[in-house]
Amino acid sequence: MSKIQDKELGFGTVEQRQRRLMTKEGNYNYIRFGLPFNETFHIYQFLIQISWKRFFLLVLLWYLLVNVLFTGLYYLICPSHLTGMVFNSESERFMEIFFFSSQTLTTVGYGRINPSGWSAGLISSLESLFGLLSFALVTGLLYGRFSKPSPRIKFSEQALIAPYQDKTAFMLRIANQLESNILDVKAQISLSISENGSRKFYALSLERESVVFFPSNWTLVHPIDANSPLYGLDEAGLRQVDPEFLIFIQGFDDTFYQNIHAKMSYTMAEIFYGGKFVKITALNEDGYPTVDLGALSHFEKIGLKKN
Amino acid sequence: MSKIQDKELGFGTVEQRQRRLMTKEGNYNYIRFGLPFNETFHIYQFLIQISWKRFFLLVLLWYLLVNVLFTGLYYLICPSHLTGMVFNSESERFMEIFFFSSQTLTTVGYGRINPSGWSAGLISSLESLFGLLSFALVTGLLYGRFSKPSPRIKFSEQALIAPYQDKTAFMLRIANQLESNILDVKAQISLSISENGSRKFYALSLERESVVFFPSNWTLVHPIDANSPLYGLDEAGLRQVDPEFLIFIQGFDDTFYQNIHAKMSYTMAEIFYGGKFVKITALNEDGYPTVDLGALSHFEKIGLKKN
Amino acid sequence: MSKIQDKELGFGTVEQRQRRLMTKEGNYNYIRFGLPFNETFHIYQFLIQISWKRFFLLVLLWYLLVNVLFTGLYYLICPSHLTGMVFNSESERFMEIFFFSSQTLTTVGYGRINPSGWSAGLISSLESLFGLLSFALVTGLLYGRFSKPSPRIKFSEQALIAPYQDKTAFMLRIANQLESNILDVKAQISLSISENGSRKFYALSLERESVVFFPSNWTLVHPIDANSPLYGLDEAGLRQVDPEFLIFIQGFDDTFYQNIHAKMSYTMAEIFYGGKFVKITALNEDGYPTVDLGALSHFEKIGLKKN
Amino acid sequence: MSKIQDKELGFGTVEQRQRRLMTKEGNYNYIRFGLPFNETFHIYQFLIQISWKRFFLLVLLWYLLVNVLFTGLYYLICPSHLTGMVFNSESERFMEIFFFSSQTLTTVGYGRINPSGWSAGLISSLESLFGLLSFALVTGLLYGRFSKPSPRIKFSEQALIAPYQDKTAFMLRIANQLESNILDVKAQISLSISENGSRKFYALSLERESVVFFPSNWTLVHPIDANSPLYGLDEAGLRQVDPEFLIFIQGFDDTFYQNIHAKMSYTMAEIFYGGKFVKITALNEDGYPTVDLGALSHFEKIGLKKN
Repeated sequence: MSKIQDKELGFGTVEQRQRRLMTKEGNYNYIRFGLPFNETFHIYQFLIQISWKRFFLLVLLWYLLVNVLFTGLYYLICPSHLTGMVFNSESERFMEIFFFSSQTLTTVGYGRINPSGWSAGLISSLESLFGLLSFALVTGLLYGRFSKPSPRIKFSEQALIAPYQDKTAFMLRIANQLESNILDVKAQISLSISENGSRKFYALSLERESVVFFPSNWTLVHPIDANSPLYGLDEAGLRQVDPEFLIFIQGFDDTFYQNIHAKMSYTMAEIFYGGKFVKITALNEDGYPTVDLGALSHFEKIGLKKN
Repeated sequence: MSKIQDKELGFGTVEQRQRRLMTKEGNYNYIRFGLPFNETFHIYQFLIQISWKRFFLLVLLWYLLVNVLFTGLYYLICPSHLTGMVFNSESERFMEIFFFSSQTLTTVGYGRINPSGWSAGLISSLESLFGLLSFALVTGLLYGRFSKPSPRIKFSEQALIAPYQDKTAFMLRIANQLESNILDVKAQISLSISENGSRKFYALSLERESVVFFPSNWTLVHPIDANSPLYGLDEAGLRQVDPEFLIFIQGFDDTFYQNIHAKMSYTMAEIFYGGKFVKITALNEDGYPTVDLGALSHFEKIGLKKN
Repeated sequence: MSKIQDKELGFGTVEQRQRRLMTKEGNYNYIRFGLPFNETFHIYQFLIQISWKRFFLLVLLWYLLVNVLFTGLYYLICPSHLTGMVFNSESERFMEIFFFSSQTLTTVGYGRINPSGWSAGLISSLESLFGLLSFALVTGLLYGRFSKPSPRIKFSEQALIAPYQDKTAFMLRIANQLESNILDVKAQISLSISENGSRKFYALSLERESVVFFPSNWTLVHPIDANSPLYGLDEAGLRQVDPEFLIFIQGFDDTFYQNIHAKMSYTMAEIFYGGKFVKITALNEDGYPTVDLGALSHFEKIGLKKN
Repeated sequence: MSKIQDKELGFGTVEQRQRRLMTKEGNYNYIRFGLPFNETFHIYQFLIQISWKRFFLLVLLWYLLVNVLFTGLYYLICPSHLTGMVFNSESERFMEIFFFSSQTLTTVGYGRINPSGWSAGLISSLESLFGLLSFALVTGLLYGRFSKPSPRIKFSEQALIAPYQDKTAFMLRIANQLESNILDVKAQISLSISENGSRKFYALSLERESVVFFPSNWTLVHPIDANSPLYGLDEAGLRQVDPEFLIFIQGFDDTFYQNIHAKMSYTMAEIFYGGKFVKITALNEDGYPTVDLGALSHFEKIGLKKN
């Protein structure tokens, strides 16, 4: 139990929690309000975070809209200054202008239809500039989304109160899901419990707070000794304080060349009192070390001595 | 009060300050001079920092200028080597060349007008190369500006001298304005006060210097105990030393995947002696924690015991 | 020997190792299994890590495939709406459409063949949009691969048990292979040895854990004193515990403006007991310091006093 | 004088230095050899570090070369499959093909000359793909060079042995040259001196090792107290040990959103024994703090008490 016990860890003070502070997916459960839209909205953030489906839909809408707008401009100002158009009706003329516009915006510029005269020349000149600039944003966003580090730390589904030396410990297991290298991994565990009717926050001490190498899996261990806020609690006592363990993992990903983070939360529903993770590393017949990530969450029941 | 008290914190020594060192927007108030323009000017820095309006104006100017220059080249060297032009006057010829140039620069290349012969071929060949290279800069800058982390830490409008345990403390409140995750947030507060006719700088100790999670708001607290340079000062005494509190926040933004920073300054005009921030977190009827960011700066008056 | 001795360093517990944990190239030797493909596969990671040959092959395949698909679309829906085609047979018609498609995808758009009519206009309009978006990914990946920091720390081929002051030390030598600056270099050495039939992990103390400047070479030294897990072991004793030294180097590269890392492993086969690295720095006739990186691994045999 | 005194600081051991280890521009003075070209050469590093003149020359050469190669292909395989060419001689035919190639490579694709038939279609299809891929590298490099943080820390031309409290200190002054924010600046000073015929390295203690804010200038101070390797040395003594002070500055640049670094070295020729930097901060008539960066290196002579 570090010196920062009883401090708020950034969660403010919550008198009587009913819902968890963090979802199992690692997202904060807070409802924020009170600021005007323009202060909380950030266009880049929005476009990076929406789903791929919505992103491509927005790209298509934008593409359509811009083409319609420029088509309108050509149509109103200078339809006769676009040479090479073939049409039998007004709607076909509109169509020809529309495709000329899209060919200009994407700079494909086939050239059958092409501008002649100041106004069409000027508008198409600006449209191709606009196309280059806006496609810079669209394609930059696309690549930014594509190359963004994604959550890749797999947490054991349940955390355990497990035997540890001659005491017990709070344990969970994590693994690097992908075939990449994560280096210099650090872990922090915060605990929120109910004490005397209000919620208190503690920073839990770990048997080991970081690993340099993270080839497969790592078991995080908080020993429940006399310094732990969990000391002396049996299963019923633990349930009574209604604990929520907030896990924070950070490291450096060698593929994305980025710092990566993962968050997770365990409440009583995801904690097993009296369990022990099964061993998932072994040597295969050729003497190579193996690790079975499918069994990351597997544990066996085991009796616990009272603290 | 850390060991670095009485040191300059990078602000040099200022004998008698009248103006604040930092604006409320977090910009330094310094006037720098003495270096030649070429040593202090950096083109990339300039183009990233100017307003969007000026940026687009410069892009348009550059686009116009480059087109005019290349148009001049074609016009002087090889107007007859551009085939397909339709014109009735010299000015229309210039126009046709101008639009041919812009179609080459943007690589839209409709092709009605096209080069034939060495000189026009060579110039247009170089223009399209130049277009690709310079649009790489323009679009790179555009996306760099667009994806640049923007200030998103909201500070309470006023800092407070508030009751704290059985003493008082200097407090301010910050919030993450956007719907993004800022992780691993660290805070530092420097204090500049007037002592014996000259300005002294102090690094203030904080009750808590960092939070791992930053879902909503965080109250920064400097306890005014015997080690604080503010110890024993009542409101009049505080006013006399003419304090300026310089705040520095850093963290990691999970949307931009970048380290972010925020700076802020509080002078006596923005400090309320004897206040207490109102609670802005609550539980809604469904049991979810809520936070009212609109009340970030709200506080109530409260009497202070003398230190 | 730091406090974290006997801890697992992220390698889990391995009862009786036969194969090394890390290859000489710095890759983990672990075999991971148990997770479904979609959880371990990440498309960006895959495309960044495959060889250049496979990358370009995939690009060509993708280019061919997309062109074939769009050719099929034009062919089935609207072959007559592509004007300007010249062909004498059905296969030549297919060919003309195919090249029109590739000219659209790359936005080269010569325009001899060009769309007229809604369906061809629409498909080509979408194809050029698709081309811009997908080339954003391809070219982004290409540049990402090209500009990615590559391993550039050269390790001495063998590590030595060398005389050190009046004791011995475990030593290895590293060099910056490239003509770049690596700054703020930090080193960590972990040791895995066999003790009582199971493998134990130790974090080894270093005489010096970081260097600010790294102009040429650096000799990492772990003094084998009373605190070292290697204390008192002669060559036979060392061989018996079957050691594997895991080296982790990190620094900041001034060319790539990135944090860089290097990993390496030494087992008994790469350790020479009783050696001393030869000096590779000198002054040339003009008084300039020189360093002979070709001799990085060179050492001379030397007798060792027993610890 | 920290614990790492007498250690090598990454410079290896140099018996008798004649030339400085680092130039005044902050580059290492080492001559490295012994590795084959392919191990020390890195194409990305090369293209980022060469001068702008050489970079553009290489781009032009590459553009010419690729066009010549593709022109050769078209010329040898399928000159008759390029329709629309206008020529009166074989050299004009070559010219037409050459410009068609450049229009394909840049995707400008005017289309007067255009491919018909398999071979020309295929080659131009591949050329435009090749153009997109290789321009991704060229423009990426261009922007990478353009947006790369450049050295911007200005060092005082001379370092001083100056009075400090009742002792003396080694001092130098640095300034942020540009109108940008550099945050969280850290400094380290290493000293190389001649002792008993060989060079020793020391890490010097600083009165202050970092500043959070760096609005204008910062004076780095190493107090020469009983713990300093310079203790008790007068000017002649200092000259005799032939000192070289190696300065390392790091910080975070708020414009480039990058960590930045600066290196510098002072030998006896750049050290003034018995000086004191003049004050360069002031208040102007409006009460604003000002700083005269032109006087960064200015100092006045002052008598020193013997240590």
